[in-house]
Formats: sequence, structure tokens, C-alpha cells
Amino acid sequence: MSIDALHGFLDEVFPQLSDGGGRQVVIEALTPGQVRVRQRYAERSLRPGGTISGPTMMGLADHAMYVLVLAHIGPEALTVTTNLSINFMRKPGPADLLADARLLKLGKRLAVGDISLYSDGADEMVAHVTCTYSIPGG
Amino acid sequence: MSIDALHGFLDEVFPQLSDGGGRQVVIEALTPGQVRVRQRYAERSLRPGGTISGPTMMGLADHAMYVLVLAHIGPEALTVTTNLSINFMRKPGPADLLADARLLKLGKRLAVGDISLYSDGADEMVAHVTCTYSIPGG
Amino acid sequence: MSIDALHGFLDEVFPQLSDGGGRQVVIEALTPGQVRVRQRYAERSLRPGGTISGPTMMGLADHAMYVLVLAHIGPEALTVTTNLSINFMRKPGPADLLADARLLKLGKRLAVGDISLYSDGADEMVAHVTCTYSIPGG
Amino acid sequence: MSIDALHGFLDEVFPQLSDGGGRQVVIEALTPGQVRVRQRYAERSLRPGGTISGPTMMGLADHAMYVLVLAHIGPEALTVTTNLSINFMRKPGPADLLADARLLKLGKRLAVGDISLYSDGADEMVAHVTCTYSIPGG
Repeated sequence: MSIDALHGFLDEVFPQLSDGGGRQVVIEALTPGQVRVRQRYAERSLRPGGTISGPTMMGLADHAMYVLVLAHIGPEALTVTTNLSINFMRKPGPADLLADARLLKLGKRLAVGDISLYSDGADEMVAHVTCTYSIPGG
Repeated sequence: MSIDALHGFLDEVFPQLSDGGGRQVVIEALTPGQVRVRQRYAERSLRPGGTISGPTMMGLADHAMYVLVLAHIGPEALTVTTNLSINFMRKPGPADLLADARLLKLGKRLAVGDISLYSDGADEMVAHVTCTYSIPGG
Repeated sequence: MSIDALHGFLDEVFPQLSDGGGRQVVIEALTPGQVRVRQRYAERSLRPGGTISGPTMMGLADHAMYVLVLAHIGPEALTVTTNLSINFMRKPGPADLLADARLLKLGKRLAVGDISLYSDGADEMVAHVTCTYSIPGG
Repeated sequence: MSIDALHGFLDEVFPQLSDGGGRQVVIEALTPGQVRVRQRYAERSLRPGGTISGPTMMGLADHAMYVLVLAHIGPEALTVTTNLSINFMRKPGPADLLADARLLKLGKRLAVGDISLYSDGADEMVAHVTCTYSIPGG
């Protein structure tokens, strides 16, 4: 699937990811086995200390992996996460979050990938995630 | 810390967890090494298919572990999650979520626990989480 | 499968787990959804400081989960581990290791469980493991 | 620490990793934040089906991370693994195993890395590991 086709599918399935001002989560780049997704900064994601919450980071990583799997297998809305493991390493400040997802295995039943999370404008990874999706009918 | 003291501390640190109608996340039981936390059902947590979203489950598990650590070490708002790993097993329907957190180790620097997530009214676990917190100054 | 049937199957598939003096790994108890496996102490499993090595613990946890899955689905030697996550909490001294494995989900394609590891004679858990097996033909 | 210094330290601390014919585990490359370690093929690591056992892969990944941490903090034999999570993706045949470890964070108390495992001569990753070490006195 192309970026446009993915955006169209996601707008339909997850209307809550768009609000009045446009998409909160945007696919910026897609190549075989890799995708970059940007989540726009929103004040409601902040935690005490001015950092972005863990669930926001986990949600973005999971979403980036979902986009990457869909890009390779087509629009299967019911593909589901079976395992997600995250290491939190640095606190992201109030900025966009970037997720670089990489497909490590695309089997008939399971897809495995890892996702590196960055805070826009900073070099060091803020969190590292591994994620497994179950592929229906595989 | 007692349940009342924990509720007071959490209301102050995470005011967003309360809304006009009261607390969304409630500590129901606290014994040495264990806590039960209930997250009230909210329509915005639903995903396609009528199930509660993964980030909602991860957020609740993380929060239950945070409450459990605070109950044992006192109000250290800056205790942070370093690792969280979740296995999603069944899809929780539109109901309250319950998190049973258990402390596996409370060291000077790290606390490790696991959290069993249930959908209110159903017997089978919907997800299982392990979680590590770093304890400041430990 | 019964304990005797499992021991017979394992002796055949993993002859290296038996040596001249008998089985190194013994199934001690088996009930629906749970198994206890004992690994006899062997000096070659020691690491500097007199503790049992991490790979020994990971191997035992994986084996206990394998036994538990076989007990429920029958002798499928090709059932394979897809994910294993371990938290090391305390150092086990030179003694037998005990693994209490619990089945959290037995689906058509995936089995998920957690395993609590103890050092014989000590109360506190030395490590906690979660493990996923893929079930062939599921 | 240099490769030679690391080999010398490891020979002393883990004499069992050398046998009559020389080192079983060899550091092949070391650059800031990265190390490549090779484990020579040994028949005793095989499982039914002619593949290398899971504990062998977990042990190598853990060892590669240990080497990488030592290379950056110096010879602290008591640095210990606190968490290891592995996704098994393909079955490695009877050949040397290669571990490419990468440091994601080196904090005062914790080091986090990921390790990609390959079977010598094959392009696709056989397993992916994330690993956390606790640094004494940090």
C-alpha cells in the first residue's frame, strides 16, 4: 500500500486520530520493510515534569508497527498486537514524536518488528520497542 | 501509604485522571505487595470492533505498578518506568478494566512487578504485563 | 499427557537431558494449566560468584513452558518458542532450580504462559519469565 | 577496553568459554557503541531438527551485551543482567552464530542494548534481543 492509500484507510478506521486541524499521526516515509511515522505534539500527552507520557509512546510505536504491517499485507483492520515490549531510555520533551519502525520478520502468521522512538530535534533515542502482530487467516 | 493517601497524592500529580464526574482510576484494594486498580469504562478508549485499545491497557498496567511502588516507598513522583512488556491475550469488551499488580522485587534501585488485566465480569485474563520501575536515589 | 508419558517423550526427543545418573530435569507436578519442573543442580551451571547462569535459568523456563504446552496439546515436538522475556531478580545459589509454569492462554496458534523460578529451599522468586509458543498447524 | 584486554579479562573470569582448541566465543569487532561477537559452532548446541538451541542464542546475546558494557565501563565482573527479551524468528542451522550488539543507552545505573543474531553465511536475522544490565555502584 502507498502512503496515500494507508492514510485513507487509517482515516476511515481510526477517525479519532484526525481532529479538526488535520491528522495527528502522519506517515512521513515508507520503503520496503521500513516506515517513519510522526505524532504531532499535543499538550494532553504531557506528564508531570513536562515529558510525554509512556502510553503515548507505546501507542505510537504500536501504531507505526500496524502501519508497517498493513503496508506489506494490505488493509487487514483486524491484524492484532500479541506482544509489545518497551525500554524507556530518555524523557521526551514537549515536541513531535518520531517512530522509525523496521520489519524483522513477516511470516504467514506473525510479523515481528522493532521501533525506535525519537523526540523531534534530538539525536538520542527516547525509547526502543519490539512488537509482534498476529496476521489473521495466516 | 494508605489508599486515601495514594488517592490524594494521585489527584494532585495527575489531575487529568479525574474529571467532572470523579476519578477514572480507583484503587480498590491494597495489601503488602499487591494492589487492585479499576479503570472506569470510557467510550473514547474503544477501538474498531468494540474493544478497549492497547494503549489504554498498557497505561492502566503502568499506573497500577506506579501505585504499588508508591504504596511501598512513599510519594516519589519521579519514579519512572524503565521497561514494560505486555502480552495481549483476549479482547476486552466495553466494560471497566481491572488491574491486579503484584510486587516481585523491591530493591534499592529497581522494583519489578507483574500485572494481570481483566475485563470486569469476565474470568479470563485479557493481558499480562511485566514492568520495571527505577527508584530515584536508590 | 501424563507425567510418565511426558518423561518418555522428552527422553526420546532430548536424550541429552538425561545422563548416566538419570534425568537432570524432572516433572514434579502437573495439573490443568500448571506444571512444576525441577532442574537438578550441576556444577557446570555455575558462574563467577557461585550463582547459576542466566542461560541455565532461561533454558529451564523455556523447557517448563514446552512441557506445559505438550501436556495440553499432545506430543508436538516442533512447537517452537517465539518470544521469551525474563526479569532476573535474585541470584540463585548452588542448588536445584524449580520452575512453576502457568498457562495464561492456549489458543489455536499461540500459547502464552509465565514461569516463576525459585532456588530450592528459598522463598523468594529468583526470576520471572513470560513465554510464547507457536503451535504448528494451528 | 580493547579487544585484547577484553579477551584477557574474559579468559580469566569465564575459563569455561575456552577449551583445549581455543576460545569458543570471539570478539570480532569493537567500535564505540557496537560489538560483534562470534560463537563457534559446537555439536552439543543442536536441538531436534538440526537447529541451534534457544538457550545457546540467549546466552550468546547476553554475553555480547556484557562484552559491550565492559568495553565502555571497564572490567566490572559483577555487572548483571536485569532483563532480557528475545524474539525467535528463524531457525539457525549448524553454523557459527554472530551477535551484533548495539548500545542504546549507557546511564549511571542501567545500560540498555539490542542484539541482532545471525547464522554465519545467511542474511536474515535469526533472533532479536533487547537486554538491560545493572551497573554496580552507579
